[in-house]
Amino acid sequence: MTPPPPRTAKQRKQDTLHRLEHDVDAWVATAERETGVPHMVPLSFLWDGATLLMATPASSPTGRNLQATGKVRLGIGPTRDLVLIEGTVQTATESTEIPDEIGDAFAAKTGFDPRRLTSVYLYFRIHPQRLQAWREENELTGRELMRDGHWLIPD
Amino acid sequence: MTPPPPRTAKQRKQDTLHRLEHDVDAWVATAERETGVPHMVPLSFLWDGATLLMATPASSPTGRNLQATGKVRLGIGPTRDLVLIEGTVQTATESTEIPDEIGDAFAAKTGFDPRRLTSVYLYFRIHPQRLQAWREENELTGRELMRDGHWLIPD
Repeated sequence: MTPPPPRTAKQRKQDTLHRLEHDVDAWVATAERETGVPHMVPLSFLWDGATLLMATPASSPTGRNLQATGKVRLGIGPTRDLVLIEGTVQTATESTEIPDEIGDAFAAKTGFDPRRLTSVYLYFRIHPQRLQAWREENELTGRELMRDGHWLIPD
Repeated sequence: MTPPPPRTAKQRKQDTLHRLEHDVDAWVATAERETGVPHMVPLSFLWDGATLLMATPASSPTGRNLQATGKVRLGIGPTRDLVLIEGTVQTATESTEIPDEIGDAFAAKTGFDPRRLTSVYLYFRIHPQRLQAWREENELTGRELMRDGHWLIPD
């Protein structure tokens, strides 16, 4: 099966922004510092135009790893139409401390409201540093759309 | 939307084995030892009934991490119908050393034949230690199907 021709950089950016806006879940890879034991789970997210907001129990492996390393890698979309993000976590906010409007927007998008749960959840704000998007092998060239936190493609 | 009732353990195992046999790609999470910087990419795999075979350049982040830590976490399927595997890597075989029949089976399943490439690829054999499978929240209970490398559900 011949794949369709590669998308333009502009089209990839548009498709990426559409996915960030409308997709609900991401594969979230983190790791233990020192041992290098990887962890990965799917989590729902809310995109605000520049960062992704996620919530997970403070005591879960993902919650502990994000607090310890501040490093995350996200995979969004199916494996043949993906967005890959290297991100840094700059703030972790307890679910009791999240502003109402942000907690409400997160719950509306994801269908999941950690504020209603008794266990301690943290909201993590993830800042993409590097972003790549490709479908098939013929899109590997030109897959990098963001570097050092800046889009390489103008709007 | 009300999700369907949770599957039985037996059904989950059957669905998992079907996915391992027929799905082509997995999200592959690894990490650097010491820094805890996570890496994740999709890679194609071949299931032989007990282990997964994958190939990646020896010098790629995934290749280096697998050699350094021997630890991997795999996500297979969409985020709402997933198989999650914690695995260990016990052997890494250069593409020039892989037995013909295994290299042929890998190429037939994945459409990808590292033996034809000039760069140094390693085949990694991944032994699942823990395996979980769930669709929606109502399947979180009973999601563990394998522990310490052994299926918890008889055939």
